[in-house]
Formats: sequence, C-alpha cells, structure tokens
Amino acid sequence: MSAESSIQSHYPKAVAQCFGCGAHNPAGHQLQSFGRGDHTVAHFTPKPEHMAIPGFVYGGLIASLIDCHGTGTGTWAALNAGEAGDPIPRFVTGKLEVSYEKPTPMGVELELIGRVREQSARKVVVDIELSAAGVVTAEGTVIAVRMPESWG
Amino acid sequence: MSAESSIQSHYPKAVAQCFGCGAHNPAGHQLQSFGRGDHTVAHFTPKPEHMAIPGFVYGGLIASLIDCHGTGTGTWAALNAGEAGDPIPRFVTGKLEVSYEKPTPMGVELELIGRVREQSARKVVVDIELSAAGVVTAEGTVIAVRMPESWG
Repeated sequence: MSAESSIQSHYPKAVAQCFGCGAHNPAGHQLQSFGRGDHTVAHFTPKPEHMAIPGFVYGGLIASLIDCHGTGTGTWAALNAGEAGDPIPRFVTGKLEVSYEKPTPMGVELELIGRVREQSARKVVVDIELSAAGVVTAEGTVIAVRMPESWG
Repeated sequence: MSAESSIQSHYPKAVAQCFGCGAHNPAGHQLQSFGRGDHTVAHFTPKPEHMAIPGFVYGGLIASLIDCHGTGTGTWAALNAGEAGDPIPRFVTGKLEVSYEKPTPMGVELELIGRVREQSARKVVVDIELSAAGVVTAEGTVIAVRMPESWG
C-alpha cells in the first residue's frame, strides 16, 4: 500500500460502500485514512448541517469518523503485521467508545490520529484522538474486529 | 410534556438544530424520542445510503441514534425528577459507548429503548438497546451531561 493512497481506497468495491468511509458511497462522508509511520491520520471538514447546536459539531458525526478511522487503522495494522493484502483485510467495529472532552467547533478541518494499542489476528484495538485547530476535543477507542466471511 | 409529543419537540429552536435530533435541521435525522412509563423509545428507518456494507446498517448511524436518544432521555429524566420545564433542560453527550452485538439489517425500522441507570442534577447515565425486527443488535450507554450555559 502506498503511503499516498488511502487505506480505504484499497477496499474491494463489494465492501467499499460504507456511509462513513466507502469510496463507492456518493452520499457518504468518504473518510480517507493514511498510514504515517507509527500512526494513522485522517482529515474531515464537517458540512454546515453537521451541527449539535449552532457553532459546534454534532457528536454523532465525531463518533462516525472515529469509528471508520478505527476500522481503517485495523486494516493498516494487519498489513503492517505482514499479512498479504489480497484480498485486503476488512475490519468492522465490535465496540466504540468516545469521550467528548470539549465542544468541537464548526468551520475548521478536523484531524484524527489513530494508534494501535493492541493487536491479534482477529482484533485490533485502536486509540484515536480527534482535534480541531490543534486542540483535542474528543478521544475514542475502537475495537476493530475482522469482518466475518458471512458479512461479505 | 404530553406522552404524544416527542421530547425533542420541546427543545427551544436555538438548541433544536442537531443533525441527529433537531426538529430545525432539515438535512438531519430528526430522531424523536418519547417517554413510555419507565423507559423511552424512538424509531428510525435508515436510508438506503446508511449502509456499512450492502444489507447492513453503518455503525456510525447506530452510534448517532444512541447518542441523541440518550441526551433526549436525559431531558426526560430531569423533567421526571420534578424539574420545571421552562426552559427545558438540555443535555449533551459526555461519553458514548456502543457494543455492536450483531450486524444490523437494512430495510427494517430500528427501535431504541432507553433506561436511566443513574441520575444526578448534572448527569444522567442512560442504557440503550437498539433492535431490528425484534432482535437486539447493539447496546449502548450515554453519559448525558447538562449543557453548560456557555454552549447555548
């Protein structure tokens, strides 16, 4: 996987239709995550309607971004562990936790940084920080689980 | 608050623009939660684009619904505790946890049931079950915190 192509851009089309991060979901957020050395990064600018109250980002969007960045980081971690990438390992969310530390302002690009805390063949635990204009406003953990064959 | 009007329909317009549950966000989900005896209930039918992979609901939407049903249940719990409803108490999410127990099928109405686990003047802890066609597919907990005045 090239450092310049997103993790999600490698998902086969049959599993690349997620509202949060599928390249083949034109109505969705199309989040793109990238490996950067020892961590992953993604950026997203909320649309004006993605508000909680005027001026602040809606927590459901923040949860969604953390969720999809977490499963993308699961794929990245599996490839980093030496797994062959054909077919690319696809992860889904087993558990999601988000702490909203501060209100997240609208009107700026959000940054997500993901770090692998724990990893096995079946499961990757990813810690994610979400920041706005350099200030961390939410922290999350995703337990990303390898997608069962019966989902695909 | 009448049992037949949703909790969110009582939010003042200035804080009723949330993408998940604001009556004044035409692009949003407009989730409506209702008190029913000892619990709260909400229903939502995902749109076709709200998929994770074809046939199954995207986890970010599930997290969003649990989030907004949780904060709505916070308002309901505060009113049930005898608080005056003018202005209506408005809660935001401090922490959100979601366990995805099973894939959630598309094409059916989802039901959310909320129950108050713990309550103080500042904070309401709400446990929520989300089910599809009678099967619980996700369980969540929302720590709903009274909205600070500086948000409003």
